[in-house]
Amino acid sequence: MTSSNHENAAGPLTRLWGKIVGFALKLKKLGKDDPRRIIHSFKMGLALTLVSIFYYFKPLYEGFGLAAMWAILTVVVVFEFTVGSTLGRGLNRMLATLTAAALGIGAHRLATLSGETGEPILIALFVFIIAGIVTFLRFIPQIKARYDYGMLIFLLTFCLISVSGYRDEEVIEMAFERLSTIVIGSCTSVIVCIFICPVWIGVDLHNQIATNIEKLGNFLEGYGEEYFKVSEEGQPRDKSSILDGYKSVLSSSSKEETMANLARWEPRHGKFRFRHPWKQYLKVGSITRQCAFKLEALNSYLISEIQSPPEVRSIIQEASTAVSSECGKALKELASALRKMTKSSAAEPHIATSKDAAENLKSVIRSSLSKHDDILQIIPAGAVASLLCEVVKCTEEIADAAHKLASLAHFKNAKPKVTPEQKELPSQGIVQPVSGIDGMHHVITINEPSQSLQENRNLPPAMAPRMEV
Amino acid sequence: MTSSNHENAAGPLTRLWGKIVGFALKLKKLGKDDPRRIIHSFKMGLALTLVSIFYYFKPLYEGFGLAAMWAILTVVVVFEFTVGSTLGRGLNRMLATLTAAALGIGAHRLATLSGETGEPILIALFVFIIAGIVTFLRFIPQIKARYDYGMLIFLLTFCLISVSGYRDEEVIEMAFERLSTIVIGSCTSVIVCIFICPVWIGVDLHNQIATNIEKLGNFLEGYGEEYFKVSEEGQPRDKSSILDGYKSVLSSSSKEETMANLARWEPRHGKFRFRHPWKQYLKVGSITRQCAFKLEALNSYLISEIQSPPEVRSIIQEASTAVSSECGKALKELASALRKMTKSSAAEPHIATSKDAAENLKSVIRSSLSKHDDILQIIPAGAVASLLCEVVKCTEEIADAAHKLASLAHFKNAKPKVTPEQKELPSQGIVQPVSGIDGMHHVITINEPSQSLQENRNLPPAMAPRMEV
Repeated sequence: MTSSNHENAAGPLTRLWGKIVGFALKLKKLGKDDPRRIIHSFKMGLALTLVSIFYYFKPLYEGFGLAAMWAILTVVVVFEFTVGSTLGRGLNRMLATLTAAALGIGAHRLATLSGETGEPILIALFVFIIAGIVTFLRFIPQIKARYDYGMLIFLLTFCLISVSGYRDEEVIEMAFERLSTIVIGSCTSVIVCIFICPVWIGVDLHNQIATNIEKLGNFLEGYGEEYFKVSEEGQPRDKSSILDGYKSVLSSSSKEETMANLARWEPRHGKFRFRHPWKQYLKVGSITRQCAFKLEALNSYLISEIQSPPEVRSIIQEASTAVSSECGKALKELASALRKMTKSSAAEPHIATSKDAAENLKSVIRSSLSKHDDILQIIPAGAVASLLCEVVKCTEEIADAAHKLASLAHFKNAKPKVTPEQKELPSQGIVQPVSGIDGMHHVITINEPSQSLQENRNLPPAMAPRMEV
Repeated sequence: MTSSNHENAAGPLTRLWGKIVGFALKLKKLGKDDPRRIIHSFKMGLALTLVSIFYYFKPLYEGFGLAAMWAILTVVVVFEFTVGSTLGRGLNRMLATLTAAALGIGAHRLATLSGETGEPILIALFVFIIAGIVTFLRFIPQIKARYDYGMLIFLLTFCLISVSGYRDEEVIEMAFERLSTIVIGSCTSVIVCIFICPVWIGVDLHNQIATNIEKLGNFLEGYGEEYFKVSEEGQPRDKSSILDGYKSVLSSSSKEETMANLARWEPRHGKFRFRHPWKQYLKVGSITRQCAFKLEALNSYLISEIQSPPEVRSIIQEASTAVSSECGKALKELASALRKMTKSSAAEPHIATSKDAAENLKSVIRSSLSKHDDILQIIPAGAVASLLCEVVKCTEEIADAAHKLASLAHFKNAKPKVTPEQKELPSQGIVQPVSGIDGMHHVITINEPSQSLQENRNLPPAMAPRMEV
């Protein structure tokens, strides 16, 4: 009885301890996945401690008084993980405070003119109208994407200035205090964010787009082997696989749009200019996603219960594997060139080869596949083959979009040895990957949200964030 | 010369006027798309005007002093479009302020004990440590999803209380003022948000899931006709079509997750309980999306350049159209039952019929399609047929998930005339849609972000938002 009680008492404690250990391990994993998170936490501590000096340092305190707390408040709400986000919020907050303060002072003056009875009524009316208009404007998608925070702060400041002015006649002084402390808070945030291990969301977007293309390439390179391995064993493969990396591309749309919106706030850094063609990144991303939908269809034939028998598949094995792996190589070349920010035509021979292989695949189907009797057994293999032919088209589209991006963003040409000679040989056999570029590839197997951040650590030195403005 | 100058002068003015008119039309469209936006703007104005009374009303002003502006600030940042969002932010803000105020007072007391030199150092250390920890914790996905705003406010309040305490000894009074004004601001927001034309995000999510299933149903109902119309004209159809409604389902994942997270804050309303099975909505949504990927593959055969010739397609026309339209009807029945929050087995006869039709389709392929010589011409039609067979499986999965949702959410049974008799006839011929339910369907053609909001206006009276807590 006692021992059972003892066990019961130890039970909850042990469970609690287990939970604490689990939580600690989770935190450790978070930091390990992306060490920039740990650095960011330190930066936040530093920025807040810096701005607290306004309270410690007497002369400043006497100058600003209680309004100095606005500086602390500003740092807490403006300081974000990436430079684009911090700059966007900081600029929004400063500009919105400036315009709202001016408008608030004007509204207050106007209300004062109407005498003691009219003043509160007029101010309430102003607040009601401005609040309604600003709230409605926030529904406009373009404003929501870039100026939502500014609209919020505009409304906030306008209310504070015009309403508080009713009691306290030092409206202008108050507005000036609020504005100056907000400028100090915003600048502290921006400076700490940019000058200590900055995280550029533009770089993250750039890498995410390259990684997504690479994921498709990985899938296609491995697809042939995986599909025909199934045929040898006669069994559909497991549902989880290292090929599943492409799945995260299917739903990357909204994340990419947010990143592009934030990237537009960032100044020139490293090889990224101020007006970097972020919209073209979104186009490349969208075409990549279209291609990922085709891969989803291809993948469904891997796990489908209705399969063509091995003897049917083996007919198309050679040609299909060639198409798939050449497309995969082309995509990985494109990803690698994009990642290194170079103009490269290293993908073109692969695309040309994949086109030839697709023609070859069609003639194999026409000549050999039709000799089989049971059409139901032929259809899955035939569908895979025709999807692969469409993937060739997709790969070309991705290549076009990526080349356009390279020229819009003024990427430099890759080393000459890759370009001119190989351009002359569009339909040579299977082209070996250029070794200098191939060293860049790393197969991505884990399918996690934190992945794109994690991968940025593998940036080549040329891509390491650098501040030039 | 003068007339040219005049034209130049009129040019910019005309263009400016054009821009103003365009902007006004855009605003009008925003309001027309979802009139709840206009109501929301009025509600925001009302809430802010209400809370401004704290400044007008003398006794209250003397009680709270300048801290009353926190109430205004709270309304601006807490008041959101939906009840779930407003409640989530309000609760986060109140709880975070409470705990941070307590911790801030504690930190301040501890620092005071260490003497005049030690005090600022100790407070700076506390701020640095707490800022670092809180910032890091915000990276945990579960915390980010529901308590991100609370963490921000916790950090903010802790800094304000502990730092300002160094100068101003009335720390406890300040903490109380801040807490009470924030409670007043939050409660004002929540009350206005709930009691004046509330927008329940749970209802929005519910409708979005039903609408998504309906979109797939619309596609499938129309697909057969569209695919074989192509065959008659011998030309691939235009790229844009009323069938494209399903495309918005492809990327709905992150939006649905956000909605489910916010819906969990909402109290009981209408037929929605407090612990409504929001997770099951996400599961239904995810399976619906899987099915949408299949439709994307089907759709690609509509616009593909390689098409089976009409004579090949006509062989499978009857069976394919039957599969497609029966799946479509089943999905639309499921969507209709979900929308009306009833348990209904009206979809089951359609599913059974579609299964029979799929078997029939397979035997048609086996017997007739294989008589053709050119296998390349058969493959597209064969692939469409095999995709349709997979869609039958998807439809069943959606039905299972929707039935599970209906039982978890305790939906009531539909009118008895639909259920028991028809359950006994799983493999009858083609079932006519139940007319009473069929009147609910409306074809959705515009593919816009605002669509899901817009559609909520078409709610049946039973679903109209109602507050029961």
